[in-house]
Amino acid sequence: MIPGAVEAARAIAEGRTTSEALVRACLARIAEREETVRAWAFLDPDLALAQARARDAAAKPVGPLHGVLVGIKDIFDTADMRTEMGSPIYAGHRPAADAAAVAILRAAGAVILGKTVTAEFAGTHPGATANPHDAARTPGGSSQGSAAGVADGMVPVALGTQTGGSVLRPSSFCGIVGFKPTFGTFNRAGIKFAAESLDTIGLHARNLEDIALVRDVLTGREPGGIAPLGNPPRIGVCRTPLWHLAEPETVAAIEAAAGAIRKAGADVDKVTLPDPFAALSEARRAINDYERARAMAHEWRTDRDRLSPAMQRTVASGFATPDAEYRTALAATEECRRLLDDMLEDRDALLAPVVNGEAPLGLDYAGDPAFQSLWTMLHVPAITLPTHRGPNEMPVGIQIVSRRGADDLLLSVAEWTWMCCGLETSPSTG
Amino acid sequence: MIPGAVEAARAIAEGRTTSEALVRACLARIAEREETVRAWAFLDPDLALAQARARDAAAKPVGPLHGVLVGIKDIFDTADMRTEMGSPIYAGHRPAADAAAVAILRAAGAVILGKTVTAEFAGTHPGATANPHDAARTPGGSSQGSAAGVADGMVPVALGTQTGGSVLRPSSFCGIVGFKPTFGTFNRAGIKFAAESLDTIGLHARNLEDIALVRDVLTGREPGGIAPLGNPPRIGVCRTPLWHLAEPETVAAIEAAAGAIRKAGADVDKVTLPDPFAALSEARRAINDYERARAMAHEWRTDRDRLSPAMQRTVASGFATPDAEYRTALAATEECRRLLDDMLEDRDALLAPVVNGEAPLGLDYAGDPAFQSLWTMLHVPAITLPTHRGPNEMPVGIQIVSRRGADDLLLSVAEWTWMCCGLETSPSTG
Repeated sequence: MIPGAVEAARAIAEGRTTSEALVRACLARIAEREETVRAWAFLDPDLALAQARARDAAAKPVGPLHGVLVGIKDIFDTADMRTEMGSPIYAGHRPAADAAAVAILRAAGAVILGKTVTAEFAGTHPGATANPHDAARTPGGSSQGSAAGVADGMVPVALGTQTGGSVLRPSSFCGIVGFKPTFGTFNRAGIKFAAESLDTIGLHARNLEDIALVRDVLTGREPGGIAPLGNPPRIGVCRTPLWHLAEPETVAAIEAAAGAIRKAGADVDKVTLPDPFAALSEARRAINDYERARAMAHEWRTDRDRLSPAMQRTVASGFATPDAEYRTALAATEECRRLLDDMLEDRDALLAPVVNGEAPLGLDYAGDPAFQSLWTMLHVPAITLPTHRGPNEMPVGIQIVSRRGADDLLLSVAEWTWMCCGLETSPSTG
Repeated sequence: MIPGAVEAARAIAEGRTTSEALVRACLARIAEREETVRAWAFLDPDLALAQARARDAAAKPVGPLHGVLVGIKDIFDTADMRTEMGSPIYAGHRPAADAAAVAILRAAGAVILGKTVTAEFAGTHPGATANPHDAARTPGGSSQGSAAGVADGMVPVALGTQTGGSVLRPSSFCGIVGFKPTFGTFNRAGIKFAAESLDTIGLHARNLEDIALVRDVLTGREPGGIAPLGNPPRIGVCRTPLWHLAEPETVAAIEAAAGAIRKAGADVDKVTLPDPFAALSEARRAINDYERARAMAHEWRTDRDRLSPAMQRTVASGFATPDAEYRTALAATEECRRLLDDMLEDRDALLAPVVNGEAPLGLDYAGDPAFQSLWTMLHVPAITLPTHRGPNEMPVGIQIVSRRGADDLLLSVAEWTWMCCGLETSPSTG
């Protein structure tokens, strides 16, 4: 397996490997597996190798990601790579500039390996990517190429975006770590908007220290790793109002995780979301569709027939959603955000389902985003950890959620929790 | 003077004029005045006429702006017009798609007359536009072409954006109405971000009914005009902590307006912003610069020398601003938003200064945005009305502010207030 981002940066810095060697290793893995996994929307080996050689030729590292490879979901603009957003409308499209996140990664020394497959405009109409654990199953969506590529060892870390469940769901389905920071954490200039008040840039990796490193780079912090918890955390187990949708493997994962953290000394209690949260599913439809319709106003006006039927339905729903209904949904959601702030005042984090179960069979449906959408609406930071397996030996994650702005605490609690649950992959050695 | 948007739509619908005739009238005005005012970054008469003829040839109106002309600040993407953002870096740049707001206007029947001059990337380094009332004076910025073009009668309405004071300041300097809705009201897909958590799309027009019409179109509402107030409003006069910066003409405007509304029956009291608001100026620097630096990460990495010295300073400041300082500034600002919500619970609106005074002499400095930045930070809807004149006969506006989400109430209070102050231009017949 290729090294993780932290390990790669260290190996390059110590002269034990080169960026070019890492690119060649990734390209070899991709050559072997891409026909099955189909994770990449754009990949030019020469362009990746040229970036790597430039890093290797530098007199000193340009930043903490010097020579480290990153995959970029194909709704981020890239000036040197096509940006097609999973839509025939943008076939061959080459933007004038890099998205902010891409430019910041490059400035920190990263090598952009290529663009990963996205569902159409980061929506629900999936691309061709398969689940690396079972190619007959969906990898989830919409950040499907990013999750599958990381899970298959084609690239150590990748950028994704989440408007409903687009980072954490595919991460769970593919058995990797998915991180959605507090809303607004990573600058969104240069991404295609889905629903502006929800779209959150997130990260896919195989371990938490890689997540922390890329998070630090994108926010301009000195890379500082993850602080260990001083004491076992206070964690609320939150089944959410959607618990009846949870398959047995999700029920088992949450209950096993709750048992493990309790055994390890966590102060565990049960948290029930109060009544207003039950309205969030419908509020999400109103907000997502209203904002999506406007973000797609150009394509709707000029190229409607080349949108998928699913996207056409969403946009039509959004333009039919009255402005007053949208504003009411925004206000109801903001009220829930404040309620959750209060509920998290005397708890460090919540343990909650991340998906309803294993990745379903078939590539036409990327799975149910409902468990994730709730937390995306709430703007809270969330992590999924690949702690469990289902009846078909497919990954099933758990989710840790914390307060808005408490991303550091979230990472610490996640690392502690992963240790308690027993690691499939050590967070330290990825 | 060319008709306003409401009047133009009515005249076209009733067969009293055509969109082509309106375009020709605007082009004639531009031909006469553009050498002095320099409001346009891109204007292709044939393209504008072709759009107008297509509207005139339609069997029925496509929407409430059928045939109505709109100017677009040159940081909105347009698929059929160059989008240069006031920077040599984007000379000749042609985006692949229209920004959401532009596409929605077109879908409602609007004719996009052209792109208006913006300060570099909607920042502080101005373009060449002059104030139509005195070409030796700045029109303000950054939406300078939009404000000057509307004020000079070149186009009835125009889109702008405000991150500090970029819509209301030039509107006051140029003697027109400027409207900044509640943060998040108009979809921002396809604009160049300055500071993502502050950037607000706004409108420039000569009267309030045109503002209401375009607002209704962009939010998908049935155009409904402005509801008259049932009773005189409750208005707090808020001098703000910046009152010592107000020139005599701004002091006179606010005091005259306060007297006029009191005389007309408003329940007027004095509002003092509590201590936390005093920290907003410094919080704004942190937020603006931190977010701006990231939004400009690509240009900073690839084309730094072609950024203005002012922009280089802002970006450098932003990358030097610690993430923790930025997060603290966000939290302090959010706290002020909640405090202001409380203060506006038993008031309909505030009357406050919009600028420190008349437009200053010279085109190299677009004036002080401080009075506006405060309200942009607070995400509240705000309107400036061209009610007064200064010692040099230059316009000096007043400002009405209301609660987040109370944009309807704001428009009603603004109309009532303008009537009280005596109209330079009737809001109904513009």
